[in-house]
Amino acid sequence: MRIHVQNPAAERLFPITPAQWGAALARHPELSDLRVSFADNDHGFAAAMRDAEVLLTWTKEVKARFPPGALPDIAPHLRVIACTSAGLDRLAPFDWLPDGVLLLNNRGAHAAKAGEFALMALLMLASHMPRITAAQREERWEPRFGSVLGGRTLCVVGLGTIGGAAARHARGFGMRVLGVSRGGAPHPDCDEVHRTTALDEVLPHAEFLLLCCPLTEETRGLLDRRRIGRLPVGAKVVNMARGAVWDQDAACDALDAGHLDGCITDVALPEPLPPGHRLWRTPGMTVVPHVSSDDPGTYNVRTLDILFGNLRAMRDGKPAPNRVDPSRGY
Amino acid sequence: MRIHVQNPAAERLFPITPAQWGAALARHPELSDLRVSFADNDHGFAAAMRDAEVLLTWTKEVKARFPPGALPDIAPHLRVIACTSAGLDRLAPFDWLPDGVLLLNNRGAHAAKAGEFALMALLMLASHMPRITAAQREERWEPRFGSVLGGRTLCVVGLGTIGGAAARHARGFGMRVLGVSRGGAPHPDCDEVHRTTALDEVLPHAEFLLLCCPLTEETRGLLDRRRIGRLPVGAKVVNMARGAVWDQDAACDALDAGHLDGCITDVALPEPLPPGHRLWRTPGMTVVPHVSSDDPGTYNVRTLDILFGNLRAMRDGKPAPNRVDPSRGY
Repeated sequence: MRIHVQNPAAERLFPITPAQWGAALARHPELSDLRVSFADNDHGFAAAMRDAEVLLTWTKEVKARFPPGALPDIAPHLRVIACTSAGLDRLAPFDWLPDGVLLLNNRGAHAAKAGEFALMALLMLASHMPRITAAQREERWEPRFGSVLGGRTLCVVGLGTIGGAAARHARGFGMRVLGVSRGGAPHPDCDEVHRTTALDEVLPHAEFLLLCCPLTEETRGLLDRRRIGRLPVGAKVVNMARGAVWDQDAACDALDAGHLDGCITDVALPEPLPPGHRLWRTPGMTVVPHVSSDDPGTYNVRTLDILFGNLRAMRDGKPAPNRVDPSRGY
Repeated sequence: MRIHVQNPAAERLFPITPAQWGAALARHPELSDLRVSFADNDHGFAAAMRDAEVLLTWTKEVKARFPPGALPDIAPHLRVIACTSAGLDRLAPFDWLPDGVLLLNNRGAHAAKAGEFALMALLMLASHMPRITAAQREERWEPRFGSVLGGRTLCVVGLGTIGGAAARHARGFGMRVLGVSRGGAPHPDCDEVHRTTALDEVLPHAEFLLLCCPLTEETRGLLDRRRIGRLPVGAKVVNMARGAVWDQDAACDALDAGHLDGCITDVALPEPLPPGHRLWRTPGMTVVPHVSSDDPGTYNVRTLDILFGNLRAMRDGKPAPNRVDPSRGY
C-alpha cells in the first residue's frame, strides 16, 4: 500500500519523522509492506498524490489542498485521508470529500494528556485557582479555601475518548459523574448517562461541568446563556471542546455576577484570542491556548499506532475505528 | 476527662462547633465521658483553664496565651495541648512548654486535600500553567505544549502524611518517585528514599520537586541558591512547606534565567505577601495564599477524629500518634 505523510511547512513540534515511522512499523510488523513518502512542500505533495492511496496529514493541509471538486484530479488513487486532529469541524461542510474516500480522525491520540488536563482543571476549580491567579494579577493575598473532589457531582458533555478519560479520573477521586451524549448509552465510568436532549434537566446538578463534545451543528451554542443560568450557583466549568460550543460572553457575565465560581477554557473564539479581549481579563476565567490535549513526547507515537490499527482493520475487512461520518461531522 | 475547645475570636470558616463535637463523639462512643467546653474569648478561656486537662486550639492562640513560664499558673491541670495545625514551627522555641504537658499536632487532617493539591500542582507544572497564566496576565496567546506525568521523576522532600499522599497520587500517574526524609526509611509509595543529607545527589534527577517537610532548624533554607542550581534545566518546583524552606529570591532568579520552568508555592515569606513583592510578578511563579491543605467541609471532622484517636491511645497506655517532639520541632 502506498502512503504519503504531508507535514506542514516549518512544523517544529509535531512533524512526523521517518524515524517515528520506522519505530511504529516495528510495533506493527504485519504492515511492513507499506511504502511511505514524506514531504512538507507543494512539490512533494503533488508528486506523491499521483499514486498515493493513503494520506496522513493535518486538517489545515486537507482544507487548503482539496477545494470542492478537486480531489479526484489531484489524487486519483487516494482511498483514505487520516487527519492528526480529533475534531474535524474545520473540514465541514464535507462537500469536498468524494464518496469513495474514507476520512479518519485521530480520536484516541489525546486521551492520556487530555484526561490529565481535565483532572487538573477539576482540581484547579475545586481549589478556586482561577480566582487565585486573578488575585495574583492584582497582587492581593486573598485566601479562598477549596474542597476535595470526593462527593461532588461532575457532568461530562461528550463521552468520546477525552470525556471517557476525564470521567475515569473523576471517579477515581470519588466524584459522582453524570455523562451526556447524543445517544445516551451507558458508559462504564459514568454513574448515569443522559441524552443531549435532556441537558436542561442535568445542568442544575452539575457542580462541575466539562464540555468535551465535538463541534457540530447540533452542539454549536449548546451551553448558551439560558443553560448557563440553569447551572447551580458556584458552578465551575471546563471547556475542552470548541469556543463556539458555549456562549463566551454569557460565561464572563456569569463569573462577574458570581453565579459561576470559575471557568477554565482551552478554546476561544477566535483563536488566537486577540489582546484586549474580555476573556483574558474576566476574574475567574483561566484561558489556556489550546494545548490541553497534545503532548509532543507521545503524540506521534499514538497517531501512528492509531493509523496502523485502522489500516489493519481495513485490510481485515473490518470497519475502521476512526472513520468519520461526514453526516454527523465526527 | 475535662477538655476545652478555644476557637479564635471571629473565626468564620473553621470554628469547631458543639454540633461537630457531638457528631465526633457519636463516632467514638468509647470517649463519651469527655466533658467539653467551648469559648472564643479571654473570659471563657480563663474560666476553662482552671480545671481543663486537654486544650484543643489554634497555634496562634497557644502562642498568644502561654508566654514562657506562664502555663502552670494559667492552667494547673493541663496535660495535653492539641493544635489544629500540622506544622508547629510558630511555637518554637518550646521553652514555654512544661515537661509534663504533651503537645499534639494535627498531622493527618490535611492528607486528602493536600494530596489533591500536590497532584494538581504537578499536573499544572506538566502543562506549563504558571507560564500560561503569566501570558494571560499580558493577554498573549502563546501555546506551550505540556506532557503527561508518566515516566517523569518526582522528588518529594518530607514524607509525612502530605508527602505520602502526594507520592501515592504521583505513582498512580506513572511517575518515578524519589523520597527524601530525615531518616531515609523505605516508604511504600516511593521507588527510593534517601536521607536529607544526600539531597545534593538526588536533586539533579528531580524533574519535579515537591517540598512538604516541616520547617525546623534543619530545613530552614534547605533549598538554597546552590541547591536550586543542582536541579536539571527545566525543573518544576512545588513548595507546600514554608517560605523559609527555600530561597524565594533564588527561585525567582532561576525562573527569570530559564533554569526553572515553573514554580507553584502555597507559602511565602512574609505571609500575607505584600503588594509589589517580586514573587507576585515573576513569570512562571504561581502564588497560592496558603490554602493548599485546608478543606472547610472536612477539616474539623478529621481534626476531631485525630484528637479522639490520640486520647484513646493515651487512655490505653499507648503512645499518642500525633505527639510532637519539641527537640525535633515536629
